[in-house]
Amino acid sequence: MKDSIYTLEAQSGEARAGTIVTEHGEIQTPIFMPVGTRASVKGMWQEDLERMNAQIILGNTYHLFLRPGHELIDRMGGLHKFMSWDKPILTDSGGFQVFSLSDLNKVTEEGVEFQSHIDGSRHMLSPEKSMEIQKALGSDIVMIFDECPKLPATKETLRTSMELTLRWAKRCKDYGLQPHQSLFSIIQGGLYEDLREECMERLVEMDFPGYALGGLSVGEKNEQMVSFLNSFTPKMPQNKPRYLMGVGKPLDILNGIRAGIDMFDCVLPTRNARNGQFLTKHGPLNIKKERFKEDPLPPDPSCECPVCTRYSRTYVRHLFNVGEYLAGQLITFHNLFFYLKMVKDARAAIIEDKFDEYYKEFYKNYTSDMHK
Amino acid sequence: MKDSIYTLEAQSGEARAGTIVTEHGEIQTPIFMPVGTRASVKGMWQEDLERMNAQIILGNTYHLFLRPGHELIDRMGGLHKFMSWDKPILTDSGGFQVFSLSDLNKVTEEGVEFQSHIDGSRHMLSPEKSMEIQKALGSDIVMIFDECPKLPATKETLRTSMELTLRWAKRCKDYGLQPHQSLFSIIQGGLYEDLREECMERLVEMDFPGYALGGLSVGEKNEQMVSFLNSFTPKMPQNKPRYLMGVGKPLDILNGIRAGIDMFDCVLPTRNARNGQFLTKHGPLNIKKERFKEDPLPPDPSCECPVCTRYSRTYVRHLFNVGEYLAGQLITFHNLFFYLKMVKDARAAIIEDKFDEYYKEFYKNYTSDMHK
Repeated sequence: MKDSIYTLEAQSGEARAGTIVTEHGEIQTPIFMPVGTRASVKGMWQEDLERMNAQIILGNTYHLFLRPGHELIDRMGGLHKFMSWDKPILTDSGGFQVFSLSDLNKVTEEGVEFQSHIDGSRHMLSPEKSMEIQKALGSDIVMIFDECPKLPATKETLRTSMELTLRWAKRCKDYGLQPHQSLFSIIQGGLYEDLREECMERLVEMDFPGYALGGLSVGEKNEQMVSFLNSFTPKMPQNKPRYLMGVGKPLDILNGIRAGIDMFDCVLPTRNARNGQFLTKHGPLNIKKERFKEDPLPPDPSCECPVCTRYSRTYVRHLFNVGEYLAGQLITFHNLFFYLKMVKDARAAIIEDKFDEYYKEFYKNYTSDMHK
Repeated sequence: MKDSIYTLEAQSGEARAGTIVTEHGEIQTPIFMPVGTRASVKGMWQEDLERMNAQIILGNTYHLFLRPGHELIDRMGGLHKFMSWDKPILTDSGGFQVFSLSDLNKVTEEGVEFQSHIDGSRHMLSPEKSMEIQKALGSDIVMIFDECPKLPATKETLRTSMELTLRWAKRCKDYGLQPHQSLFSIIQGGLYEDLREECMERLVEMDFPGYALGGLSVGEKNEQMVSFLNSFTPKMPQNKPRYLMGVGKPLDILNGIRAGIDMFDCVLPTRNARNGQFLTKHGPLNIKKERFKEDPLPPDPSCECPVCTRYSRTYVRHLFNVGEYLAGQLITFHNLFFYLKMVKDARAAIIEDKFDEYYKEFYKNYTSDMHK
């Protein structure tokens, strides 16, 4: 297992620009990772992801374990080869899904018994099983198997959960991965900064090549998350990547970057695309609205993506209204392009030590409500 | 209206190679036209169609009339601009759809009253209305509004229908289209060659820039269609494009080309793609089959399309099984690429006067049942 994969290159305030090195290529941070749950970013060819310069994508342990099965993917040469994606892949541990998607899950010291959301079949996911699956998938970045407690929860419940997550983290670390794989740990503890700090310190003692924040953006107020991130993130190890899991909206990501986070993933740009929402410089644009019916403008006139430079609002609205697949495909491409440009521009601003100006300008435009 | 848009360049037996000239570019025949019913070839970006060298696509008058409406498309600059497709477009007349899709249609001398398949709203489609819609769409090739009688039908019924189609053809011709548009007429008459000949002669007297065969591949035996095409097609005007509407499977198209047909369209390669069927040199390949579960080969190892040069059977099968959009997208691209290559190769063989060899080789491979 690799120990040091991150180089910090520049800081602007707490915002960081760096590089993560993997065997499948370098990742320039801060970065957004498109979510390819079942070995596909919905509606995108791998060529599309390359065209938008996606540097790393996510795969999902829970979903790939159930279908087509990690052993099949292993026999086919691993996830990179299976889906023909040569750049870095991060896999989550399946923890979040067994708690949120499957029924009748039962947590024990050993792991989580659950019933498949597809056919009700019974399975056990444990630290060792999650590592076995992720090892077979061959992802570049592997996440530890953690408990995701139901929120809201008392501090006592969160502590109990954190202790379990720490014991599971140790078991994950003791499991041998492939030489090219890096295991990231996950800091839990809700919004209790003392719990989070204790969790982090004990994980740092175990020494992981990367640290993630889990259990955020799951119901707490946005200001609470921002406040927590601003206070907590700078205390995280400087020489390791920092990953804020499952977050979020464009401004959440900028807030994360400002606090010092390096990596993000979220289904929002892809899921909302399929509901007709373009994310643009001037805020979300809902293509279903009547006012776009005969609007010949590009979805986002300031955007240089292949969708905005070719197709019009009136056309995409028509496609969406009649249920053509192309609507979701075009909006998904644009939204991912938009996210990737946002973090790329943020990186450039950090390197020039002008992140605060970038942040303010982006915030002003994005909240202008031009498309409301 | 243009009168002469076709140049015959070579013949091999009855098979023809030619060029159709339109304001949006030349079409080298024989050609297959991907179907973009609602201003989108399902799951394809217009860039995809360009990448596979589609020379002309179809739009559908009935569907575009209902949604988003031809007047809206007209105000947006016509169908080419609306959907951002600069190459030729052919629109059908809506006749086939009002007879097959909508409920409670009532045929009068004036036209067809029908109820929308979407919301049950009542409309009238007539020769003039069909021309009004297609004029607004601005397609390069416009089809006359014909009656499509329910089959099987008696000869008397077919004659009555043919007479109505002829009167409607005259009304379509008398309607003024845009200067760049060419109006093709449709020869009806079932499998009665005398009826078909009479219909053709009376249409030729009216002098159209192109002639289509309608009402084939709608239930008759395949050998009957082939036999009819071989006998009838050579009698069609030599100096005009010949279009076999809605046909068909790969071998149907080769049989059509052999009989002297120049243009084809069919939803089969796109619709079957969404059902998991790759059309390959060695016959159809159903990706759902268990035998492809761990098959690392390309869908069609002999194919040079971007799907077959990058993705595997095991991957596409997984995508199909879990319901990922990408499965349909990849198979659709391949199938259209396969059809376009088939007609391109046929054209090259005709120019070399080796069509018969090409036909036999294709037939032998395609019926080898390798993927059964």
